[in-house]
Amino acid sequence: MKPSGSPQSWRRRNGYEMPAMQEFSILKHIFAANRQLDPKVVIGPGDDMALVEMSEVGGRRLLAAVDQLIDGRHVTLVTTPMALVGRKAITRSLSDIAAMAGTPLATLVAATLPPDFGEARAIALFDAMRETAAHYECPIIGGDLAFHADRSHPMTCSVTILAEVRGSFAITRSGAKPGDRVYVTGALGGSLEPDGLGRHLTFEPRISEALQLHELLGDRLHAMIDLSDGLGRDGSHIARMSKVQIRLNAAAIPCHDGCTWQNALADGEDYELFFAAAGTVPRAVMDIAIHEIGEVVALEQVDAPAVIVFDGGQWHDAAGMGWQHHV
Amino acid sequence: MKPSGSPQSWRRRNGYEMPAMQEFSILKHIFAANRQLDPKVVIGPGDDMALVEMSEVGGRRLLAAVDQLIDGRHVTLVTTPMALVGRKAITRSLSDIAAMAGTPLATLVAATLPPDFGEARAIALFDAMRETAAHYECPIIGGDLAFHADRSHPMTCSVTILAEVRGSFAITRSGAKPGDRVYVTGALGGSLEPDGLGRHLTFEPRISEALQLHELLGDRLHAMIDLSDGLGRDGSHIARMSKVQIRLNAAAIPCHDGCTWQNALADGEDYELFFAAAGTVPRAVMDIAIHEIGEVVALEQVDAPAVIVFDGGQWHDAAGMGWQHHV
Repeated sequence: MKPSGSPQSWRRRNGYEMPAMQEFSILKHIFAANRQLDPKVVIGPGDDMALVEMSEVGGRRLLAAVDQLIDGRHVTLVTTPMALVGRKAITRSLSDIAAMAGTPLATLVAATLPPDFGEARAIALFDAMRETAAHYECPIIGGDLAFHADRSHPMTCSVTILAEVRGSFAITRSGAKPGDRVYVTGALGGSLEPDGLGRHLTFEPRISEALQLHELLGDRLHAMIDLSDGLGRDGSHIARMSKVQIRLNAAAIPCHDGCTWQNALADGEDYELFFAAAGTVPRAVMDIAIHEIGEVVALEQVDAPAVIVFDGGQWHDAAGMGWQHHV
Repeated sequence: MKPSGSPQSWRRRNGYEMPAMQEFSILKHIFAANRQLDPKVVIGPGDDMALVEMSEVGGRRLLAAVDQLIDGRHVTLVTTPMALVGRKAITRSLSDIAAMAGTPLATLVAATLPPDFGEARAIALFDAMRETAAHYECPIIGGDLAFHADRSHPMTCSVTILAEVRGSFAITRSGAKPGDRVYVTGALGGSLEPDGLGRHLTFEPRISEALQLHELLGDRLHAMIDLSDGLGRDGSHIARMSKVQIRLNAAAIPCHDGCTWQNALADGEDYELFFAAAGTVPRAVMDIAIHEIGEVVALEQVDAPAVIVFDGGQWHDAAGMGWQHHV
């Protein structure tokens, strides 16, 4: 359950001023009435993926999530190679599997395209999605394709991903505890550069890294999320759902060349893992560096900021640095 | 894997002339390259739902499918109560679960709405979907909501449904055998009447009926499909995938008041079950009548028509009576 958000810089770049907060509040309203969920729903809407228990005794637990890719919002079809559009449609969903430490199972795709999209481009788009999904062992098992009535209507593409839970539990956003340290994989910031054709199109979803972290840390891995909307906003999701405060050390945040810690908080679309854990955490996993960037503390007041960041001189409210604040 | 089709009369009514065959041929092309599917994919794209095997030894088999609902094509938002739009978005997917004799598990929904759609209507739409899904024990566990940039862009809504296989196998489209008789539940024809607000909005998906049929007939239930595109076209799916010919007796086809057997073949959106079985079949299941309407015979020639119907005077090619022929 999440609105089709996108980072502030991306939205600005595309002159896109849609009511993302309205989308989010509508979904929240709708799913608030969903509290009395079927008992088979172990994790309902609100995390990276939902978790449902299948019927057989000792049966499998299934993770599922849906996300949309809309032309002009999440991608710009006129400037982006179709192979990368198709790749991103799948990898951004696979990143949600990583966030839950799930094992990929299968993908379903539905797209509605403008009538002048062209058969060759439609095939290129679906081929890229199929190959990407297969590469990550999450094959496309169902698809639906339609054309809009008018060429001005934009491509909308929904991707549903299914995954399995290894062992007895998945990693949620809600398990961070005071005393935990928080960590990030890889480096952050500047995912759109250059010219909107940067890493947000070519990143590797951290599926294997997440599985290995889960195996190494076991139940010391308390909470995890993938960084799609920036460290500020995504960190806030963990903090609010865990009812804690997260305090970040700006100097410790690993940044890509040319980026500041402000970029790391606000740019978004890094698709690295951000997690809270107790005890010792390795410095790397699958050759990807892990940096400790802050700590989890108890909430002193209900209305205290969810994530704050210390830059050596003063504390800043990190929520004011993600795109959410500017909508 | 199927194009977002809709019956001929519906398309005519809405002046909708989209390239449905192009959609279908593109998907076929795409998934033809999909033959070397992951071994966990037991049934790939091409049936009502795909079937994937989960990893654990003796693990569960999961059914999954995605479908789209587009304003102006599958529904007309300006004339249809939002509660019925939301209901149909879910029930037409649940009908696919019935076609496979599956047990509902969970639903995921993604919608992109025009910016002037209105919060109250968005909530009404999602509430109706949520309540319908919960009613059929297929709760919505994930959702995504976005708004288009322009009010002229139509609502697109994708629905992914998940189901479990009871026992060891699901019922596909490909198991019909010469000597089988073919049957239909309920009655057919005229689903749009009156004024596009007919049974296509209010039908009951035949989930319980399908499960009971499966239980009663066991492995004598050879093939099944739900009738969304009309007996002509959907019957052809079973015939072609089973490599047989289906011969229908027009006089035996149960029709709704005011409908002829031609309506039963061409109108579509009945969402009744059509199935092929060997041996004795009950006359009703869960108080829904079952009519024997024809037989399965061996294909005499490769290019013989998939479904033919005898009206007492002559044989007609039924494929010429579904919407497909007129596209």
